[in-house]
Amino acid sequence: MKQKQDGLAAGVDIGGTSIKIGIVTSDGRILIKDRLKTACVQSKPHFFELLVAKINALLESVNASPGLRGVGIGSPGISKNKGEIHRAANLHFLEDVNLVTELQDAMQVPVHLIKDSNAAALGEGLYGAAKEMKDYILITLGTGLGCSIFINNQLLEGNTGLAGEFGHAIVTEGGRECNCGKQGCLETYVSASGIVRTVMELLAQSKAQSIFRSQAYEEMSPQSIFEAAQKGEALALQAFEYTGRILGLHLSNLLTLFDSEAIIIAGGLTKASKYLLPSINFHLNQNALPLHEGKAKVLLSALNTNEAALLGAASLVWKN
Amino acid sequence: MKQKQDGLAAGVDIGGTSIKIGIVTSDGRILIKDRLKTACVQSKPHFFELLVAKINALLESVNASPGLRGVGIGSPGISKNKGEIHRAANLHFLEDVNLVTELQDAMQVPVHLIKDSNAAALGEGLYGAAKEMKDYILITLGTGLGCSIFINNQLLEGNTGLAGEFGHAIVTEGGRECNCGKQGCLETYVSASGIVRTVMELLAQSKAQSIFRSQAYEEMSPQSIFEAAQKGEALALQAFEYTGRILGLHLSNLLTLFDSEAIIIAGGLTKASKYLLPSINFHLNQNALPLHEGKAKVLLSALNTNEAALLGAASLVWKN
Repeated sequence: MKQKQDGLAAGVDIGGTSIKIGIVTSDGRILIKDRLKTACVQSKPHFFELLVAKINALLESVNASPGLRGVGIGSPGISKNKGEIHRAANLHFLEDVNLVTELQDAMQVPVHLIKDSNAAALGEGLYGAAKEMKDYILITLGTGLGCSIFINNQLLEGNTGLAGEFGHAIVTEGGRECNCGKQGCLETYVSASGIVRTVMELLAQSKAQSIFRSQAYEEMSPQSIFEAAQKGEALALQAFEYTGRILGLHLSNLLTLFDSEAIIIAGGLTKASKYLLPSINFHLNQNALPLHEGKAKVLLSALNTNEAALLGAASLVWKN
Repeated sequence: MKQKQDGLAAGVDIGGTSIKIGIVTSDGRILIKDRLKTACVQSKPHFFELLVAKINALLESVNASPGLRGVGIGSPGISKNKGEIHRAANLHFLEDVNLVTELQDAMQVPVHLIKDSNAAALGEGLYGAAKEMKDYILITLGTGLGCSIFINNQLLEGNTGLAGEFGHAIVTEGGRECNCGKQGCLETYVSASGIVRTVMELLAQSKAQSIFRSQAYEEMSPQSIFEAAQKGEALALQAFEYTGRILGLHLSNLLTLFDSEAIIIAGGLTKASKYLLPSINFHLNQNALPLHEGKAKVLLSALNTNEAALLGAASLVWKN
């Protein structure tokens, strides 16, 4: 019955690999979802054409009545003045486009836009591990390290909308080179490529035998390191331990600053949570303020990685 | 005329050395002020007796009419459930006392309580360097390193009121021992005792001649290091450079997280700002995100150190 009253939302999660689209109820159920391959989008008009067609096809297949109430979009590179997308790598078809206005014109319903990582954090707070929490932090461990900070239920945006760039906090002066141009950023240690770089470093430091001695840098991935850890490979286990140590230490600094209720960990790397979490928790508690010690909570995301941002983006339809 | 309309506030700033008391107008003018020596307070009842007598004497001397509208108190160790003071070192006479209720009973006006560092930050935002800013951070460099963070004009308090303990962010794993029981906290490097410890380290590292070779640890102070710097003593200059470097680097991380408009520096160590600021600014900008680079602002407090907390505490009388 709720569906009839509130209508439905379309949630859209724009990523470098795929664009996920789902039809969502106001209580956070995804009725149907599908995806478009980002690489197949040829131009700006083509993007809108594909997106509108997909939303309409999904709506039709769930026999939606009373129909669509709005669209919520999560995307990388959002500026604080919502609507425009800046510097979104791999998403050149979105440059200099006002997504909100153009999609509103095409769909004739309200359109809302939010940074992808913030959409996921919103989803986590509404339907996931941070449900009922007011002060929480979502850390997304993927290609980079994403961070969204909620303070008293408000997303921390900062003076120009750039707050929460925890992945670019400098943890080692003169440390590993980062895509951002700086050195020693947290995400050069704690991310998909970060853990591969750690394996390199361990191979350099020790003389221990390892299956990684016969693999090239480019062949390695968090997945292959995870599989090696599953087989008991010492160097893979060390790499996860090291990653968890760096993350745990710096999460303790986040708690010291924000005094949050919990830190939620999401993203691809959490597949290896059984190796990461013990190390994160140990180093977090070892470095936490005496008052936080033992109380500092790190939780795994309770949402499907592919659905968190989609759910959070869709929720904007009812929030606004 | 404003004074007549709004009445006056008493601002109280409780510190380990002295308790400062001032009579303040609603536009932030201190009409008169005085202080009590903290060491002279013998007991809880004695504290209230001295405080009430002093406020009344000050009021009398300014011929206040229409009189006192309320009292605002800044104190260390405030819990989030305002009124009680916890773990305030040197202030045993305040243990297990509800300052608000007891003083309200004694004075018959509303009493407001705030953490001392937050009171100073509030003063800075209303009357000082952060006037007209909504997103700013106050760093107080004294015995320790205090930090108050304002986000959209709201003080960041956190889930249990402990947010902003930036002085206890760990900047060096296994680094200098801190009073808090941890190692490598920022304030073990950047504070009054931090800079003395840095001189020790420099004396150990180099073989250079220095006037500090003839002084004991306990004889040194930020003041003596400042005086040596004034005379061109290389090691003193290096100590300030090093202090500014550590602070600048970690302020860049604060900006990366909070995207604030400015960071205000206050406290005793800022006497040496001509040695500290160039180093802070250099390392802040070198480590800032490209988007912040060159725009990152560090400003000196525009208020008298002895008055900022008093003004901020007094302002609560009109705010509430």
